[in-house]
Amino acid sequence: MKTPQLLNYARDQWLPGDPGSLSPINSAIDGSPVATTGSGGIEFGAMLRYAREIGGPALRTLTFHERARIIKGLGLAIMARKEELYELNYQTGATRKDGWIDIEGGAGTLFSFSSKGRRELPDAHVLLDGPVEPLSKSGSFIGQHIYTPLQGAAVHINAFNFPVWGMLEKLAPTLLAGMPAIVKPASSTAYLCEAAFRVMIESCLLPPGAVQLIVGGVGDLFDHLTGQDVVSFTGSASTALKLRSHPVVQRESVKFVAEQDSLNASLLGPDAAPGTPEFDLFVKEVVNEMTVKAGQKCTAIRRAMAPVQHLDAVEAAIRDRLASVRVGDPRDKASRMGALVSCSQRDDVRAQIAKLTAAGARVVAGNPDASPGVAGGAFMEPILLRADNPWDAEAVHDIEAFGPVSTVMPYSGMADAIALANRGMGSLALSLFTHSPDAAREFIHGAAAFHGRMLVLNRDNAAESTGHGSPLPVLVHGGPGRAGGSEEMGGVRGVKHYMQRTAIQSSPAMIAAISEQYIPGGPKHEIAQHPFRRRMSELRIGDTLKTGSRTVTLEDIEHFANFTGDTFYAHMDEEAAKASPIFEGRVAHGYLILSFAAGLFVDPDPGPVLANTGLEDLRFLTPLYPGDSMRVELSVRAMSLKSNETGVVRWAVEIFNQDDELVATYDLLTENVP
Amino acid sequence: MKTPQLLNYARDQWLPGDPGSLSPINSAIDGSPVATTGSGGIEFGAMLRYAREIGGPALRTLTFHERARIIKGLGLAIMARKEELYELNYQTGATRKDGWIDIEGGAGTLFSFSSKGRRELPDAHVLLDGPVEPLSKSGSFIGQHIYTPLQGAAVHINAFNFPVWGMLEKLAPTLLAGMPAIVKPASSTAYLCEAAFRVMIESCLLPPGAVQLIVGGVGDLFDHLTGQDVVSFTGSASTALKLRSHPVVQRESVKFVAEQDSLNASLLGPDAAPGTPEFDLFVKEVVNEMTVKAGQKCTAIRRAMAPVQHLDAVEAAIRDRLASVRVGDPRDKASRMGALVSCSQRDDVRAQIAKLTAAGARVVAGNPDASPGVAGGAFMEPILLRADNPWDAEAVHDIEAFGPVSTVMPYSGMADAIALANRGMGSLALSLFTHSPDAAREFIHGAAAFHGRMLVLNRDNAAESTGHGSPLPVLVHGGPGRAGGSEEMGGVRGVKHYMQRTAIQSSPAMIAAISEQYIPGGPKHEIAQHPFRRRMSELRIGDTLKTGSRTVTLEDIEHFANFTGDTFYAHMDEEAAKASPIFEGRVAHGYLILSFAAGLFVDPDPGPVLANTGLEDLRFLTPLYPGDSMRVELSVRAMSLKSNETGVVRWAVEIFNQDDELVATYDLLTENVP
Repeated sequence: MKTPQLLNYARDQWLPGDPGSLSPINSAIDGSPVATTGSGGIEFGAMLRYAREIGGPALRTLTFHERARIIKGLGLAIMARKEELYELNYQTGATRKDGWIDIEGGAGTLFSFSSKGRRELPDAHVLLDGPVEPLSKSGSFIGQHIYTPLQGAAVHINAFNFPVWGMLEKLAPTLLAGMPAIVKPASSTAYLCEAAFRVMIESCLLPPGAVQLIVGGVGDLFDHLTGQDVVSFTGSASTALKLRSHPVVQRESVKFVAEQDSLNASLLGPDAAPGTPEFDLFVKEVVNEMTVKAGQKCTAIRRAMAPVQHLDAVEAAIRDRLASVRVGDPRDKASRMGALVSCSQRDDVRAQIAKLTAAGARVVAGNPDASPGVAGGAFMEPILLRADNPWDAEAVHDIEAFGPVSTVMPYSGMADAIALANRGMGSLALSLFTHSPDAAREFIHGAAAFHGRMLVLNRDNAAESTGHGSPLPVLVHGGPGRAGGSEEMGGVRGVKHYMQRTAIQSSPAMIAAISEQYIPGGPKHEIAQHPFRRRMSELRIGDTLKTGSRTVTLEDIEHFANFTGDTFYAHMDEEAAKASPIFEGRVAHGYLILSFAAGLFVDPDPGPVLANTGLEDLRFLTPLYPGDSMRVELSVRAMSLKSNETGVVRWAVEIFNQDDELVATYDLLTENVP
Repeated sequence: MKTPQLLNYARDQWLPGDPGSLSPINSAIDGSPVATTGSGGIEFGAMLRYAREIGGPALRTLTFHERARIIKGLGLAIMARKEELYELNYQTGATRKDGWIDIEGGAGTLFSFSSKGRRELPDAHVLLDGPVEPLSKSGSFIGQHIYTPLQGAAVHINAFNFPVWGMLEKLAPTLLAGMPAIVKPASSTAYLCEAAFRVMIESCLLPPGAVQLIVGGVGDLFDHLTGQDVVSFTGSASTALKLRSHPVVQRESVKFVAEQDSLNASLLGPDAAPGTPEFDLFVKEVVNEMTVKAGQKCTAIRRAMAPVQHLDAVEAAIRDRLASVRVGDPRDKASRMGALVSCSQRDDVRAQIAKLTAAGARVVAGNPDASPGVAGGAFMEPILLRADNPWDAEAVHDIEAFGPVSTVMPYSGMADAIALANRGMGSLALSLFTHSPDAAREFIHGAAAFHGRMLVLNRDNAAESTGHGSPLPVLVHGGPGRAGGSEEMGGVRGVKHYMQRTAIQSSPAMIAAISEQYIPGGPKHEIAQHPFRRRMSELRIGDTLKTGSRTVTLEDIEHFANFTGDTFYAHMDEEAAKASPIFEGRVAHGYLILSFAAGLFVDPDPGPVLANTGLEDLRFLTPLYPGDSMRVELSVRAMSLKSNETGVVRWAVEIFNQDDELVATYDLLTENVP
């Protein structure tokens, strides 16, 4: 059988690399050829231009919600054809369980971003950041920060270990932002990435130019980057450094996001003696992180720290647990751990282990030179090292063996624990096993600046924990210093990496036009029909109901107080209210004002407004005294769909007194029929 | 008189540079010597260590509010001694009005950050970012993003043009974040920066190691940077590139914030014909930006664009207005424009003008070779250039003359206007003069990705506008691409550049301990005394009142409906409520539930709780049906002081039904006595 050649996807065409540029990719299981790949002859500058001129404009015509629906569709397409991907996954050395993280975890990331996009982003083209900033006395000049999509291309350079998830966790926020992407997978597992990419193209959901694929080297692509492009890199620190230092990246201030392998740590808390649930959880997690994906995870635990008096017990327990880990053909269900991605990767890991032992660590479990599993495959035993003097054997904090390898080491007291954790000079993930809130607070406050994600695990949350090594789409993934100094994901936070924040200064009317939202002080369209009678599709931003007014009497206040039981002095005691620094006498209850406001603006019959689901940013600005009157202006601020059946309308509510002073403002949320 | 030698401030000592390292600084007015300066012999690595080991820990023991109060004190100290600074300001060539931006604008920036810090940051050591992220079904495992101060040093490298403001706009967010700083001013105006720095040291408000000063070169300082340090640079693109590319900055992923001079544009809108207020405002602003600070502003308008049919009128109007600008000794009140900072700066500007004219622009106002003002000083006339073919004379988008120089150019239609604006490849500020919301939306959506701050100015906001060139502390300052690809200021946004964001995953109890806030699901301390009877100093986070319960009857609902007028179908019509996709029958009004909740938890007598000022994040989760009962748990979530007399308590309110299901949750804000 001829070995298949992977194809590039450039300018919406599948293109083979020149024959001279091809290199083989071999199976991790037995070294047999899986595919050839290369990108010789591809015009990289033209790909960038195509992304900027075709893909970007096409994506930018869509709203966040339209993009979110596409992203969900891509996830469904992956799930529908997941078995094709699982089949290829074995060739990377990964078990089915490893593949689940990659394939279904990747699709899950698309679903998470789609859901966040629809719930937390507007159904519009511009994302507002923070509230209006008042910049002038009368309010004619205000500030508003907005995010708009960058107008370049996002270049995604992915690692070999999670060819599907690694692509999708970058694509989801990029596409949601409205930016086109060029994906460049690592060669050794490019066939799996190409297969998943092909599923997306064949779903026909994406607009032209939204995604492109380079299955070989990137040639002169970096020479064509501009300040509107983003490079998002996952991989080794040395490759990151090379790319980050590229003269064009430097000169053009190209946004460079890097997730680099780091010396992640896990720490057994001072309270977690042998026999405690935390001790057992710690041992289990260290072994898990050593063996899942054969330890080839950028978040894997490389440094396992324990109180010096418990180190022997920790070592023994990890060794015991490792003894039951069966290494072998990942297609065999009995195999707990598969192969490394390639024999050259295994050579690298063995070389790094040699550096660690030369620096003073010693192997306490596993034989680094053993070659278990299938002949010709890249299998190795999990290796536990021990460094009794971690401040002398400094290599344990600097040298990473990117495979099933971890080093246990002791600490003496909290200050030492914090210093050792931070000695990694920046990591993606750290876990602390403790049941003591004081220990957790002290440690986290001392170490958080050095770590991108930190878990505090114990008997209370272990059953539901997602584990040390799992980046989650709703949480940031990344870390300072050695980890690359960047962030990805984190829900909408990750979307913003592909957008530009701009401070806009103008009048409310202009800010409203730019924002695609009603802005207090901006134009209102008073409508004759009650807005509660309109479906969302019939409502426009700025549609406003102005109610009649009602007078609030002392009798109302007393009645309300007696009815609800809220007899706070400010409402009931003229003397005390006058004596307060805020009021000139008895005032209406805030809740009475809210209730009367609803009485003024609610249209009672069943209709497109199903329910009041919430209220935000309520501020009481001017007290309402007995005899004052109140009226309401209710304006459509923004709208978003939750599903085909329901949506949310955000209403700006302004309550005025008889002198047109603002008594209160808030946003009212209702569930509506689209 | 001997020329004074500027001193470095290292490790809390004033230290002179070695005599061999000294260089002279001359007056911009007449070239006479003002000071000598140098930093030879200063140990830069030791300064960094001192910042990290003394300054950082001292600042981190303080809360955000304690730091905010120090920052306010520094502003007051500057204001108290501002006349000393105004006196030195003249020697930089600046008028008193120019100096006002620098000196009082700098103090104002301190006040703004102090105020933002007290209003928007907690009185704690950790800043929460976003809400809790649910990560598990039963809620035992949740996520929370936090910010903690970076544990390195912030190195501030400042430009010559605003020696006081430039220092303070970086110091305010840095100190507020809890990070120590090392300030390095530009040599040509270092005497003014040193004087302002000295005022702050002499105020004795800062903890040891919080700030240090280098009045000469930075020697080997960059060799000692780590991933916990931040470099914040303002100045030329070429210097930024040199520093950003430093191998240690690259290798350690040192955070690098850059504000670079950029080719900022101002655009006369398509609707703004001669005779409109917008036309006059545009002309005024271009001239203002050319002449304030002799055009030496990183935000100054270098490219003034007008519809092709109005270009002659624009040129004529700007020329007319420039004719009345008097250039001369800045100490003379009649001088509208002072000198450039130095004769060598003037030489640079003239050389850049020559490049612009060689590329096809022509001088239409002013004589570049004229030397008005005082003999020996760095005075020049404001120079207006015109480029009739801005797509041919490309240098007008790439070459900046950093002085009183601007180029007018035509555009044809909106697409051309957007393309020309974006051809600057990234800018700090752009202004658009239009009264058309459609034009504003189209232009801003097309160009926002290339610009850090954009103003839309017109007749409605001109009277209150702060102008094209003024960065404001509450808005971000910075821009993509050529402008440096960074941000500063923007209120709390700017503080975060000096902190690390970390995703924390754990149980609510642990997250609460780490956050210094009550977290729903976390521990509550039920207290016997009603919390409304306690002053803020007597309240602790997590103090909780659990109320008795009350039943909500159909009669209550009908009574409330009749009283308030809120007869929404879900409360009044059993059939219609049942038919809705949400309710199983008639339900209590949300506002009735809120009102009854207050009746349950309010303690009526006058006391430390002065008033209910607001309510946030209200969500109705479970409907309350007639016959159901409700009870409330009211917990102290967070507290912050507004002044010595008042503060704000944020209460987490949870309303449960008889089955302990959550009916509603919200945050209640009260004004309290500290």
